[in-house]
Amino acid sequence: MNDFVYDIPVRVYFGRDQLKNLGPELKKYGTRVLMTYGGGSIKRMGLYDRVMKEMKDAGLEVYELNGIEPNPRIDSVRRGAQMCKDHKIDVLLAVGGGSTIDATKFMAAGACVDFDPWDFMDYSKQAPIERALPIVTILTLAATGSEMDSGGVISNPETKDKNGRLAPALLPKASFLDPTNTFTVSPYQTACGAADMLSHICEVYFNMNQDLFMLDCFMEGLMKTIVRYAPIAMKDPENYEARANLMWTSSWAINGFIDGGKRQAWSCHPMEHELSAIYDITHGLGLAILTPRWMEYCLDETTVSKYVQYGVNVFGIDPSLPAMDIARKAIAKTSEFLFDTLGLKRTLPEVGIDETHFAVMARKSVGGGTLPGFKPLQAHDVENIFKMCME
Amino acid sequence: MNDFVYDIPVRVYFGRDQLKNLGPELKKYGTRVLMTYGGGSIKRMGLYDRVMKEMKDAGLEVYELNGIEPNPRIDSVRRGAQMCKDHKIDVLLAVGGGSTIDATKFMAAGACVDFDPWDFMDYSKQAPIERALPIVTILTLAATGSEMDSGGVISNPETKDKNGRLAPALLPKASFLDPTNTFTVSPYQTACGAADMLSHICEVYFNMNQDLFMLDCFMEGLMKTIVRYAPIAMKDPENYEARANLMWTSSWAINGFIDGGKRQAWSCHPMEHELSAIYDITHGLGLAILTPRWMEYCLDETTVSKYVQYGVNVFGIDPSLPAMDIARKAIAKTSEFLFDTLGLKRTLPEVGIDETHFAVMARKSVGGGTLPGFKPLQAHDVENIFKMCME
Repeated sequence: MNDFVYDIPVRVYFGRDQLKNLGPELKKYGTRVLMTYGGGSIKRMGLYDRVMKEMKDAGLEVYELNGIEPNPRIDSVRRGAQMCKDHKIDVLLAVGGGSTIDATKFMAAGACVDFDPWDFMDYSKQAPIERALPIVTILTLAATGSEMDSGGVISNPETKDKNGRLAPALLPKASFLDPTNTFTVSPYQTACGAADMLSHICEVYFNMNQDLFMLDCFMEGLMKTIVRYAPIAMKDPENYEARANLMWTSSWAINGFIDGGKRQAWSCHPMEHELSAIYDITHGLGLAILTPRWMEYCLDETTVSKYVQYGVNVFGIDPSLPAMDIARKAIAKTSEFLFDTLGLKRTLPEVGIDETHFAVMARKSVGGGTLPGFKPLQAHDVENIFKMCME
Repeated sequence: MNDFVYDIPVRVYFGRDQLKNLGPELKKYGTRVLMTYGGGSIKRMGLYDRVMKEMKDAGLEVYELNGIEPNPRIDSVRRGAQMCKDHKIDVLLAVGGGSTIDATKFMAAGACVDFDPWDFMDYSKQAPIERALPIVTILTLAATGSEMDSGGVISNPETKDKNGRLAPALLPKASFLDPTNTFTVSPYQTACGAADMLSHICEVYFNMNQDLFMLDCFMEGLMKTIVRYAPIAMKDPENYEARANLMWTSSWAINGFIDGGKRQAWSCHPMEHELSAIYDITHGLGLAILTPRWMEYCLDETTVSKYVQYGVNVFGIDPSLPAMDIARKAIAKTSEFLFDTLGLKRTLPEVGIDETHFAVMARKSVGGGTLPGFKPLQAHDVENIFKMCME
């Protein structure tokens, strides 16, 4: 069991009636706000007007940057960082899902340096992130957990890279989580968000190191919550209980708490980032396709006990069955949840991906070496997993 | 489902090898430290010397206050607040369990005011706690959760009061949780700590309002962790896995996370505070005696569903049984855990308490009105529960 430091000083305003706290929260950091968002959905749902009113009432000076892409691109980050410099911005307000929040984090960091923000993301440079302007978020999609973590992922279409980066300075100061702001999320996006959250947990949960039992219980609780409420939110999009459970789960699936002292690399995420870097598919969809195949690929006598724990505690599989049977049933239950219950596409060809780039993507996903995850994966292992996703 | 604000900016250094961070952490707040502790146990276990060495190496000027009582008294608080003023203390370091940390919190607040610190605790005065000196803790007992929450309880032997108070300013800046610092905790104190934690969770979990399912899963995970590891820690006191699970559970059982938007009063704690105010028994022991009787008293057709959830998810009771049977079995399992597995005394007479003060204690525990908890309790209800503890 490794030592760890727990340090998540994000203030979360959770619930329906919290926007009244937005003005006072932003004013802690100054008066000049850059508000960032994606397409027009926040205008259609009325959130834009409510947020603007709160900020105007608080006497804040607001600049806007919109059009942040679903897989956010470095050009948006460059644009935002420049706006922060031009307008002497004091605080950034990201209104949206993980893409908007991720991009905003690197704008806030980019505003504090003189070099190109891609240098933060370029794995060969890893430019230090020492400071960032303060960030506040209003979440509109339960998925990536960016609202309560210190990381983000940015795409560079020129280099076909999609790279992630973590730094404490990127942690939002406060996040507003109002489940009603996710009522208009489509069933498909709700499903992709659920798959993303489930994957965040699996990346940590599937681990053969000695861990805190308490944290395993928490992870099982988070997974049970997703399995229970994602289908309800898809069928009944204004079900507050379902949206609230999914929203708070998205934050805790990746804010670092469940990690404890685990220091193992993630597996499905680096694989998926290569898929969406080239094919621009939805992150959660890519993860859904990969996850059950990765589970199948990693199952053997040395890892089976973890699948048994997962199958019994998350899906209620009969613990008296032989271990391998429980493990296979657990994987089948995972596929059933992702592809039948959530209705996500099951194979790569169904989302327009063929074998053309498998070898290159596999090499990139392991960083030219080995992914030291649940089971260590080399490029040929990842290529095998990609191939398992063909049918 | 109520709105809530999540805000727990406590940095936790968890594990065996974290004391190297103590000096740098304290120096963030200044150079003059008041170190507080209870009896001699931290000297016997060598912790005192290690802590002193870290502080000396960091060039800190250290003052000491020891002798803080197990149910900490207002006189210790007064003494500490005065020392802070006399020596212009910058930061307080509490080394101990919940009693030491609780007392230190009110010393830190008392150092910032000109009035008697009992005015913070006196329910008729509720003097505002606007500021407190920064507090860092080194935990040596997994029980009260004071290391990660903003509250504390102080006794006043003159008035026979034992009062609690919460204030954000009392939240520790950082806490050092090294499970090896609990290796010397006796089986009896380990058991009392486990009962205290279990009670913290029951006070929130037993609730008929609509809650976040996700948080119920977390609470069940915390309770399963206590049930699993407390007996191991009692039999094998240097079992790191058991001590680590209990330690991190103690913090999360009461830091506010599991509350979500619940705003219901606690029940067993106010009852127990009256017992230990008069008889000075160990808090966790009093809670252990009260909890199963309180469960029994509150069980009826309107509350049975919560007991079913508890029995099935924490103790694995067969869900196909009739609801009332599951509920009764769940209460029996709770008693069995507390009195047989943990070996705690089962009745009030066994700890030297008779009916003499029941009526007075019952009236005080409901504050002259009703405890609006799981089931609203009036003075006569509390008196009935006390009487149930006689055999």
